[in-house]
Amino acid sequence: MNLRTPGPTPMPPMVVQALAQPMINHRGPEFAALLHDVTVGVQAVFQTQHDVLLLTASGTGGLEAAIANLFSPGDRLLAVIIGNFGERFATIAERFGTDVQRLVFPSGHAADPEVIAARLAADPQIAGVLVTHNETSTGVTNDLRAIAEVVRRAGPLLVVDGVSSVGSLDIRTDEWGIDVLVAASQKGWMVPPGVAMVSVSPRAWEAYGRARLPRYYWDFGLARKEAARGQTPFTPAITVLYGLREALRLIQAEGLEAVFARHRRIGAYTRAGLKELGLRLVPVDERYASDTVTAFWVPDGWTDQALAERLRVEHDVVLATGQGELSGRILRIGHMGYVSEADIDQVLAALRQTLTTRTAATR
Amino acid sequence: MNLRTPGPTPMPPMVVQALAQPMINHRGPEFAALLHDVTVGVQAVFQTQHDVLLLTASGTGGLEAAIANLFSPGDRLLAVIIGNFGERFATIAERFGTDVQRLVFPSGHAADPEVIAARLAADPQIAGVLVTHNETSTGVTNDLRAIAEVVRRAGPLLVVDGVSSVGSLDIRTDEWGIDVLVAASQKGWMVPPGVAMVSVSPRAWEAYGRARLPRYYWDFGLARKEAARGQTPFTPAITVLYGLREALRLIQAEGLEAVFARHRRIGAYTRAGLKELGLRLVPVDERYASDTVTAFWVPDGWTDQALAERLRVEHDVVLATGQGELSGRILRIGHMGYVSEADIDQVLAALRQTLTTRTAATR
Repeated sequence: MNLRTPGPTPMPPMVVQALAQPMINHRGPEFAALLHDVTVGVQAVFQTQHDVLLLTASGTGGLEAAIANLFSPGDRLLAVIIGNFGERFATIAERFGTDVQRLVFPSGHAADPEVIAARLAADPQIAGVLVTHNETSTGVTNDLRAIAEVVRRAGPLLVVDGVSSVGSLDIRTDEWGIDVLVAASQKGWMVPPGVAMVSVSPRAWEAYGRARLPRYYWDFGLARKEAARGQTPFTPAITVLYGLREALRLIQAEGLEAVFARHRRIGAYTRAGLKELGLRLVPVDERYASDTVTAFWVPDGWTDQALAERLRVEHDVVLATGQGELSGRILRIGHMGYVSEADIDQVLAALRQTLTTRTAATR
Repeated sequence: MNLRTPGPTPMPPMVVQALAQPMINHRGPEFAALLHDVTVGVQAVFQTQHDVLLLTASGTGGLEAAIANLFSPGDRLLAVIIGNFGERFATIAERFGTDVQRLVFPSGHAADPEVIAARLAADPQIAGVLVTHNETSTGVTNDLRAIAEVVRRAGPLLVVDGVSSVGSLDIRTDEWGIDVLVAASQKGWMVPPGVAMVSVSPRAWEAYGRARLPRYYWDFGLARKEAARGQTPFTPAITVLYGLREALRLIQAEGLEAVFARHRRIGAYTRAGLKELGLRLVPVDERYASDTVTAFWVPDGWTDQALAERLRVEHDVVLATGQGELSGRILRIGHMGYVSEADIDQVLAALRQTLTTRTAATR
């Protein structure tokens, strides 16, 4: 199967092998070494010197943890939304009783940092800004560096959903001043789902001290305290961490810059190939097109489901269908982590064959 | 390594192998089949016809989910506490703003159903009772059937932490009237940590409809809705589920009754062996001694750490040290899941050699 969804992603053979290791005591020395190796490796990829905590959860759990640890009921938050996952982040914050102000940009567009700056200037009450770095539902990447700059200038905490970008795209957590960055193992990290990674800046720790939303399982303070003695507060997803240690070695061997460059190259390659097939990209401005997931409009006469099913059954190529308001109308190709041009060639060939050899009647 | 902690537990070779499978689309047909197989298998072990939901989390996440889905701020709950994990359950409920009444029994003792009945009779405001079935910190198993009977008679919801018992001990979820039962993959299920399992009774669903505590990641309703179409709301720990499907096949092949009988037999075998060595059990009444974890007092002149370290380094036998008020004073032997008499023989031999061949001076 050529699994080309934007997560879970394929795993290199060495990662798959690493999963098949015997269980260990999560309060023993083998686990302490594992936790140390993984934490140091993740810090390097996050480009942070700050704390990185590992939670047993999907990426959404990491987002919920960020909200629960930083804020109090009624805190005003600005949710910058460019698609489904931005909307999800806002919903989580709302469910927890914060005062969420939505700043929504149309599907296919990136957020405009100047508009964010204006909103922050107009409302000094805003205590935190929630931003999706790479919007998996539309294949658009926000200019996080520029957004971080305007947020930092205004003062609120910057909380970033980096689930489908960290590990694949260049994010300078400390240099740009990101307070909390959330990642998830099943994306560019090339390992199975089950571990969320969260970096916490000193400013975020101050906010943690004041925050009054309910937290226990997500408690950053508990996680930091246990990490100091090589443990986690609750039984961790050890198998996923085995895989992550191996994947981090592979990332380190390739080199972080080379990993980022490969993603940029394959992103451009994918977009060029789709355009050659006459397909239209969802991102309206290609400068903001994502280098980890490419979304394109399905041609007239097709639904996303029908086209995805054809690709899967006839070509063993698995793409993701549309979400939210784009449901039915787009397909998404994941190209993060363990991916090369050959994988994309297969997708493009399958699309070419499916779209050109069938008449509308046989769809 | 003879991993004899009360979770994570050793895995059968076929389960280890099952982990090393390629990744799949969690919104595709292969995952729908996996989720179906696992859910049906878990329902059989839970002995329930009700909904069973799978969450990407440790067991503690499952406990937090139970609180967040069933209750509202200020709801009065009775937390029946016989050790560290009962205390943890109470703490979670407290953090979420419920009015927790603690009913604490001394370490080594089981909860007395009549005392629970009296408390419930005296306080009709109590909306839910939190009970640890098998207290991993003391090796004591509550008489859940008797407790369930008094709770059912009084009317509140019964929420049970079955993390270290479900899959190993006989729990009749529906017959006894348990509203929410929480289990975790790394215990008797013989698979890695990362998946919590939760059963939800019709009465619990009614409570869910009224409950106002904040929830998103843990939302039972979302999980049920997605499960109906073969999916999970958030990316699931697919690798752990691969292992769980295989482990459920093994449990089914052995037979549920045979699995329970083996645990009873090995529990008795472990206790007899320890007593033969002159060691004293933590449970004061052996009728309530756990058949999944045996706690014993370390002999005079030893700390738990020192004895555990000696067993680990010299015999490759890994036991768990004490927790909470028992920290420093007890060791715990896990015997749930993939365990036979031979594993216990190794533990007993290591203990015998360590305790009889060393003088106090060399400790």
